[in-house]
Amino acid sequence: MSVESALGDLAAVGRAASSGGYRRFAWTREDAELRAWFRGEAEKLGLEVTEDRVGNQWAWWGDPDASVAAGRPGVVTGSHLDSVPDGGGFDGPLGVISALRAVETLRAQRFAPRRAIGVANFVDEEGARFGVACAGSRVLTGALAPARALALTDADGVSLAEALTRAGRDPREIGRDDATLRRIGTFVELHIEQGRHLVDTEAPVAVASSIWPHGRWRFDFEGEANHAGTTRLADRKDPSLGLAALILEARRAATQLGCVATVGKVRVLPNGVNAIPSLVTGWLDGRGPDEDAVRRMVPMIAEAVGTNAVEESFTPDTAFDPVLATELSALLGDAPVIGTGAGHDAGILATHGIRSAMLFVRNPTGVSHSPAEHAEPADCEAGAAALATVLRSLAGG
Amino acid sequence: MSVESALGDLAAVGRAASSGGYRRFAWTREDAELRAWFRGEAEKLGLEVTEDRVGNQWAWWGDPDASVAAGRPGVVTGSHLDSVPDGGGFDGPLGVISALRAVETLRAQRFAPRRAIGVANFVDEEGARFGVACAGSRVLTGALAPARALALTDADGVSLAEALTRAGRDPREIGRDDATLRRIGTFVELHIEQGRHLVDTEAPVAVASSIWPHGRWRFDFEGEANHAGTTRLADRKDPSLGLAALILEARRAATQLGCVATVGKVRVLPNGVNAIPSLVTGWLDGRGPDEDAVRRMVPMIAEAVGTNAVEESFTPDTAFDPVLATELSALLGDAPVIGTGAGHDAGILATHGIRSAMLFVRNPTGVSHSPAEHAEPADCEAGAAALATVLRSLAGG
Repeated sequence: MSVESALGDLAAVGRAASSGGYRRFAWTREDAELRAWFRGEAEKLGLEVTEDRVGNQWAWWGDPDASVAAGRPGVVTGSHLDSVPDGGGFDGPLGVISALRAVETLRAQRFAPRRAIGVANFVDEEGARFGVACAGSRVLTGALAPARALALTDADGVSLAEALTRAGRDPREIGRDDATLRRIGTFVELHIEQGRHLVDTEAPVAVASSIWPHGRWRFDFEGEANHAGTTRLADRKDPSLGLAALILEARRAATQLGCVATVGKVRVLPNGVNAIPSLVTGWLDGRGPDEDAVRRMVPMIAEAVGTNAVEESFTPDTAFDPVLATELSALLGDAPVIGTGAGHDAGILATHGIRSAMLFVRNPTGVSHSPAEHAEPADCEAGAAALATVLRSLAGG
Repeated sequence: MSVESALGDLAAVGRAASSGGYRRFAWTREDAELRAWFRGEAEKLGLEVTEDRVGNQWAWWGDPDASVAAGRPGVVTGSHLDSVPDGGGFDGPLGVISALRAVETLRAQRFAPRRAIGVANFVDEEGARFGVACAGSRVLTGALAPARALALTDADGVSLAEALTRAGRDPREIGRDDATLRRIGTFVELHIEQGRHLVDTEAPVAVASSIWPHGRWRFDFEGEANHAGTTRLADRKDPSLGLAALILEARRAATQLGCVATVGKVRVLPNGVNAIPSLVTGWLDGRGPDEDAVRRMVPMIAEAVGTNAVEESFTPDTAFDPVLATELSALLGDAPVIGTGAGHDAGILATHGIRSAMLFVRNPTGVSHSPAEHAEPADCEAGAAALATVLRSLAGG
């Protein structure tokens, strides 16, 4: 296999004709197809595929429990196959495919791992359907309680519990999975770069230093539904004005504090051309290199727009193991070590205390979460080769 | 029957549990139920129910063609049964029910009409599903060409042609219907007031003078989809900022020009919390007493927000027959004569050249297009009685 051919195998799954982007959401038909593909490819490589309590998939080369018993817990790599709405084809799949490609390379090299090597496919990393990002790794590590997770609902009001049942699973099964966690001695996630750090360098691959603190907040603006033609301006309680203020204040406060802020999701009720809305909701995504600045930004916006910010999630600054990052950078010919504004399952595992690292593959435009997301085939192969080098080093000792 | 009991008969049809409002859209199951109810009630009163080419329902007392042949074309009253999303129970149904109630009253009085009396139920007045308000009366009068109407699509991409087919109708049938139009000598529509003119008066019923010029315009803001965390503010092309400007500029320009303006419908693509949108669309509803001011408002907003306004519909100032309005006001004990910002089928018929009038029934809060829309039972009965008086006068001569 090549990384390019494997990306090609997945090219049609969940592709929206209208945008050319992907809609691959947790526990849908598309998700089932991607999971079946993962199982098939892993089995072709002779890996043994298991699932944990929440449904993350794990494909093992060697016996992970024997590895633990021998005092050499496994080395795991992987990422996710789901997408944001109208996302690109690389965010997630590149990490899973590169992991399988690296295993194939090591097999061809007749490498004999001293530690079990695992390839992971995390479920629901983007949170596109139920609103909580990294839901699979959060439940796995206990950061997201089963009861809270099961009660999450999608846009059609379907709960995660219901979605799991429809997907043929038992929702009572989900929860923190220590048996799986103890198998992971080290975790390395490869991901397309979501920014422009590598564009002007000679390096196709970088190592991550940390993930910016980031969170999601909901702002509800209550109005009074009324007729758009017959209600005097002075008599209106029009909540769209609150949304406009939120969008502008988010930009202003982020600029002032050196953060980034986005109102990417909006809901207007009843959303009729000739009706003043009764309720407008805007979701704020806020991040930045300085946790204190992100924390100050949200109440500053809330005060300016005159409503409460409901925190739906917050992930503090996540530093990856600095010794490991330095080691991997050296191993990869002094690869750059860079921070990122994007959350990842590797960050959730790092926060849980698992020694973790990330590799980023160059993205010529820096664009991500868009059909325009791209990495050159040569850079993808360089990424998979770098990952093979890393696995050989980590699993050989 | 009482108006209140008939409203009660319809109370469950298309009621959304989440809002308490109505979702009664053209050519849906709910619409079919409302149409069947209309037919049944009209037949109970001994009226003969027919349909025109586009599906508007007409219930006749007396032979409308004999009436035309005798040089005394009919007197028609009625309104519509569809709703905006999460609308109230009065906008539309009150006019249809009051029409049936008025006929019942005249029957009980053993009134012998010299002109045929018709009760109409217009289809798709709100345009909630396919975007064009008064679609039924517009097609009837030729103001909306069949080809354009049939190509309109709903939020799921279903065309009107397809919706008609699914409803068991032949889309090739629709078009201007002169045989129906010539039966309408005079048209009188009763409607709940959508404003506060009557709140502080002794009068439960008013007569309409005119309908404000009004229109709908679409503003598309194109952006560049990208990751909400990793894209620097300076590198963004975020179309939500355009939406914010549209909302604020619409309010500012409307205030300056003495108009009303509403951004009640918004579409964000892809609408993901952690994705900068690729496209944001806002719909502007603009109206005012001065057509020139409304016309000037739209380019003023478009220039301020830096994008084009696509006109989806525009209806000029519609004056109802002033002689008829004066006559009806006198007949109803000097009922107030007031203008309105809302469009109605009566306005479409008036523009077509049919002698038309409207009666408004007092609305204690002025709220409309909302579950909070309300009229007191006594005022509803007063409205139906006023309509009976009007029909008796118009059909007796």
